[in-house]
Amino acid sequence: MKKLLVIGIGAGDPDYITLQAVKALNQVDVFFILDKGNSKDKLIHLRREICERYISGRDYRFVEAGSPERERGGEYDAAVKDLNLAKQQVFERLIGEELGEGECGAFLVWGDPSLYDSTLRILQAILRDGRLAFEYEVIPGISSIQALAARHKVPLNRIGRSIEITTGRRLAEGFPSNVDSVVVMLDAEDTYTRLDAPDLYIYWGAYVGTPDEILIAGKLKDVAADIARTRQQAREANGWIMDTYLLRRGDDEGV
Amino acid sequence: MKKLLVIGIGAGDPDYITLQAVKALNQVDVFFILDKGNSKDKLIHLRREICERYISGRDYRFVEAGSPERERGGEYDAAVKDLNLAKQQVFERLIGEELGEGECGAFLVWGDPSLYDSTLRILQAILRDGRLAFEYEVIPGISSIQALAARHKVPLNRIGRSIEITTGRRLAEGFPSNVDSVVVMLDAEDTYTRLDAPDLYIYWGAYVGTPDEILIAGKLKDVAADIARTRQQAREANGWIMDTYLLRRGDDEGV
Repeated sequence: MKKLLVIGIGAGDPDYITLQAVKALNQVDVFFILDKGNSKDKLIHLRREICERYISGRDYRFVEAGSPERERGGEYDAAVKDLNLAKQQVFERLIGEELGEGECGAFLVWGDPSLYDSTLRILQAILRDGRLAFEYEVIPGISSIQALAARHKVPLNRIGRSIEITTGRRLAEGFPSNVDSVVVMLDAEDTYTRLDAPDLYIYWGAYVGTPDEILIAGKLKDVAADIARTRQQAREANGWIMDTYLLRRGDDEGV
Repeated sequence: MKKLLVIGIGAGDPDYITLQAVKALNQVDVFFILDKGNSKDKLIHLRREICERYISGRDYRFVEAGSPERERGGEYDAAVKDLNLAKQQVFERLIGEELGEGECGAFLVWGDPSLYDSTLRILQAILRDGRLAFEYEVIPGISSIQALAARHKVPLNRIGRSIEITTGRRLAEGFPSNVDSVVVMLDAEDTYTRLDAPDLYIYWGAYVGTPDEILIAGKLKDVAADIARTRQQAREANGWIMDTYLLRRGDDEGV
């Protein structure tokens, strides 16, 4: 039987890796790396660095494949589904041709594999389609959300209240009425600048946990323009950006 | 200056600990442990075990204090605020009397300090009140939510959709209309059995990541009674229970 590990390596600081993940890395024969093009070079580099740092006394190899890109324009969910179908073909080829019987392959996932990542969904689709058989395990990792909260030293929830985790796309429909803490991921459009909510606080972070980390917090109306400007400059300087933010209603005590 | 570390030690498996947390543990002179009474003995034991396992070549001490208990009955948020005020007095005494100048103290938090945990809120309140001065840092940990998702091998979100993290108390008001994935923590009342939602799937887990782990998943209407029965039996057998679940609308593909 072939075995696959989906390993969350944490978001940012290499020290975010868990001991469970380190043990998992040391079982792996083949690391599959999907190359998304130049802009994400740093993330690929970090995966290799993590392997070098944490694997000892064991041979392993990397197999790289070009990653399909999402079609821009058009309906988002449909585009993601098309992308996942294309990725599924790549994954099937990698698992079918590049992993031997009895070997262990791994996908290293930035952050946590259960949050806005398609790897699990694709592996399950492959098993459902039935052309390949394998067993697999999932190793959780510190997500960018947790890194953000830790660096700002702020709880994600207010006492006894709910938290919504959402995307920039969904936030554009308005701040949800039934929660007072909203964590926003995948926002390429500075959606926070378009919210008409004078009582909101924002805790924003980019490259959190890395040497490039930038943190800005304050009343949204006071700091939104500063964040947008900082974000734009950082994206130009680094060629890419990875940022997240927490929005909180009525954050009168700073927590 | 006194220094405090709020260290997330992960939820369940001792291997969920991060390397950042291990490094943090090895800076600590004093571990503060709040004793919640017999039912949580296992959690206190696990904290001591984590220190023994991961700290090397360094002296450290434990200081235990009785933890105030929340008043049952009455309004929940107010009761939690009262509880936190009482805890603040305990924390102030511990930091003031049991930690020397230049020493490093730590609170070990089950799971992640940013999720439904009062430690950060209490430290910030102490600083605000100004009777004590200290610096502090927060180290994120794998939450029970992530452990649950990893062990069920299920993403927390559907593609491009939002997730709500909430409490049993809030879920009792009904399944939120604007999300299709809801993670429920702190549900002592089997609230999932009272939802009238034939299309919901549930991924439930107790003691996730430990040798006592129990996982049940399926259509809510098919497995709710089984979960309630299993939960009751496990709570009686172990004297306590720690469980979490993910509810998902229209989970037709199992993911």
